[in-house]
Amino acid sequence: RRAAAGGAPRRRVVTAPLRIGVAGLGVVGAATVALLRREADLLAARCGRRLEVVAVSARDRSRDRGVPLDGIEWRDDPAALAAAGLDVAVELIGGEDGPALELVDGALARGVDVVTANKALVARRGAALAARAEANGAQLRFEAAVAGAVPIVKALREGLAANRMTRIYGILNGTCNYMLTDMRETGRAFDDALAGAQALGYAEADPGFDVDGVDAAHKLAILASLAFGTRIDFDSVHVEGIRGMDPMDIAYAEDLGYRVKLLGIAEYGESGLAQRVHPCLAPRAAPIAGVEGVLNAVACEGASAGPTVYEGAGAGAAPTASAVVADIVDIARGARPPTFSVPAGALERAPALPIARRFGAYYVRLMAADRPGVMADIAARLGRRGVSIEALVQRARGAGEAVPVVMTTHEADEAAMRAALDDIAALDAVAAPPRSIRIESL
Amino acid sequence: RRAAAGGAPRRRVVTAPLRIGVAGLGVVGAATVALLRREADLLAARCGRRLEVVAVSARDRSRDRGVPLDGIEWRDDPAALAAAGLDVAVELIGGEDGPALELVDGALARGVDVVTANKALVARRGAALAARAEANGAQLRFEAAVAGAVPIVKALREGLAANRMTRIYGILNGTCNYMLTDMRETGRAFDDALAGAQALGYAEADPGFDVDGVDAAHKLAILASLAFGTRIDFDSVHVEGIRGMDPMDIAYAEDLGYRVKLLGIAEYGESGLAQRVHPCLAPRAAPIAGVEGVLNAVACEGASAGPTVYEGAGAGAAPTASAVVADIVDIARGARPPTFSVPAGALERAPALPIARRFGAYYVRLMAADRPGVMADIAARLGRRGVSIEALVQRARGAGEAVPVVMTTHEADEAAMRAALDDIAALDAVAAPPRSIRIESL
Repeated sequence: RRAAAGGAPRRRVVTAPLRIGVAGLGVVGAATVALLRREADLLAARCGRRLEVVAVSARDRSRDRGVPLDGIEWRDDPAALAAAGLDVAVELIGGEDGPALELVDGALARGVDVVTANKALVARRGAALAARAEANGAQLRFEAAVAGAVPIVKALREGLAANRMTRIYGILNGTCNYMLTDMRETGRAFDDALAGAQALGYAEADPGFDVDGVDAAHKLAILASLAFGTRIDFDSVHVEGIRGMDPMDIAYAEDLGYRVKLLGIAEYGESGLAQRVHPCLAPRAAPIAGVEGVLNAVACEGASAGPTVYEGAGAGAAPTASAVVADIVDIARGARPPTFSVPAGALERAPALPIARRFGAYYVRLMAADRPGVMADIAARLGRRGVSIEALVQRARGAGEAVPVVMTTHEADEAAMRAALDDIAALDAVAAPPRSIRIESL
Repeated sequence: RRAAAGGAPRRRVVTAPLRIGVAGLGVVGAATVALLRREADLLAARCGRRLEVVAVSARDRSRDRGVPLDGIEWRDDPAALAAAGLDVAVELIGGEDGPALELVDGALARGVDVVTANKALVARRGAALAARAEANGAQLRFEAAVAGAVPIVKALREGLAANRMTRIYGILNGTCNYMLTDMRETGRAFDDALAGAQALGYAEADPGFDVDGVDAAHKLAILASLAFGTRIDFDSVHVEGIRGMDPMDIAYAEDLGYRVKLLGIAEYGESGLAQRVHPCLAPRAAPIAGVEGVLNAVACEGASAGPTVYEGAGAGAAPTASAVVADIVDIARGARPPTFSVPAGALERAPALPIARRFGAYYVRLMAADRPGVMADIAARLGRRGVSIEALVQRARGAGEAVPVVMTTHEADEAAMRAALDDIAALDAVAAPPRSIRIESL
């Protein structure tokens, strides 16, 4: 590095390289090692010290991963990395227990900083691991666990640290967002959209983790803890996925000025913490309504900052490696912010608000017999539960057969709405259980 | 604060409060002091120490700013703050020299960390001030100087630190974006849109700083230095504003699938650094094309991360205070990243690419006589300079009078394009100098 401009004397600190171990050499692990080697000089200039991968661990030593591992120590047991004299252990194994947990917990217990992309592990065990880290003077970092390349963890923990946050919400699963975009554009059914996503590598052979909302729920729980300083509480997240979503509802939503998105939403107020993942109708004018395909986006509402929105690649080897290495850079530069925005011991145990307490508007589609009096019956069932219709939007005519009836409601309690839908489902004239999708004010 | 979860022994460090001085008590200064006082407990939990405003300086001591200043030392001379035994001096005076420079330079020289919202100061003197800071073990922080509440400085310096950046661009001036949105929605002329923005407080009585692009250019120069690790070079920014923008062109652009935006764009490659601020046609599908009104947005293209986009309030007292206090929180937590992503002495002096070297497509509108042969003459002038027409989009008919001719070109060198436009302007059949607006691939 050159001398400082201006000729002023500089304090020169000769800092030893940061010794890094990487456990898990799948596509993300290989991309991380490759990035650290390819940009070694650039990263050294940005960190003030070199970042050296000194040890790796993976299941199969003989596999060619397209990245040279010469001069790097190999460990068959990832947990052994914790004892390898590292500054940073990078956990890219995955899974909420087993070797991943063993490595992370073992490293933290020895005071070794940990960087992980493992959302399940952090969502399930984050609070305990943060306490473990802080008790041992270590750091637990997980930028890559949420929204891939987008530095949303840093934004919440640091960039927005002056704000009392009121709400965060986002498109947290690229697979679902891709499928919803595809269904809207082509009118394809859910199963066909899923097969298409699988063919493109956007969905796993076992897609439940993505399409049933679990992946988004992991990420939401992490974001909520960071935003509100609450103890991470994955078990309280209400989770619905997009399985069985009907393209007909996506099309009706579009007609009504909305776009169907699978959102994770967390709100924190005096009565408690609401965390929910479900499909919803997002107003077309909302910034995240325009975020399509595999992209992720997160909106954060702060008391001073107002709404800010962050968008980018939510998955993929290179974007995830970008986030993993960003955490390593931070560690190399000596930054030591609290894991979840406040020290682990100061995280609040917020009461969880159940989904039944949600207050908001709804989209409802019924298949109802096309005969006199049916609409009055439906409206009466809603009215009896205190739910009022905002608009009755579509009603095709069919000689005696069931036709779609689409409506939106004014804001109502979820519990009342569910009771009204049960009442409506019991009507003879209603052919199938009504479909309802929450409408969000964004 | 409560004890750590898990009962593990914790290292307890009793840290003294961070002593803060604030110079400049306009709306941002008052909001900053109010925020630090209102959220004192929350911020102490997030920082591990209390943030205390111990001194302030402003022009008029008697003015009521709606924020209590009891117990805070008052200094008539802002430069005297540097000697007040502070940990952090917050500069919210403004201006690229005078008291702002005197305070910032004086504080850094004494090893006092500085937080500023002053984009002119950072754009003009950032490299020298960064060197001064580093030579004295101090920090220069300026999150609030770009895009208000949006933590884009942190994203570039830290969140994307693993990336070699190739391009950044953004809507960096809310006043211009508001006016362009207004002109598009209402068809209002520039002068009317400006008067409207002034009435709403979005534009100053002297609007040149905003509408002529200078403010956006300051911010672009800062972002470019952060993104590319190049020495800040405001003087090389090509600057055009939106003065005289014709709503007719905004409407034609819309018909063509574009939205007119004032963008700051910086690109860094082997041949050098291009920095330019000018109105352009952004494809409607680009994420920032949908960013309307006073909002700001920045898109960053990194080698690993791919494109990420950041959006939010670009101005206003509370959003700016959010960014100022975020910098203070970082300092309180002990983070000490290099000012412009690399140490000041390592910033590269990149050759500046002049605007004539821009290679891209153009939108052109002529007012031309509606008679045979005119179109052929125009096309010939373009062809002679190597510019080919992509589409000829609009041609109203008028009996003998000048009618608008709108076209888009294929990609061409800016120098060739300018020469062709000069040739066309010289044609008898062309009534007024052609209007051209660059089309950007975003």
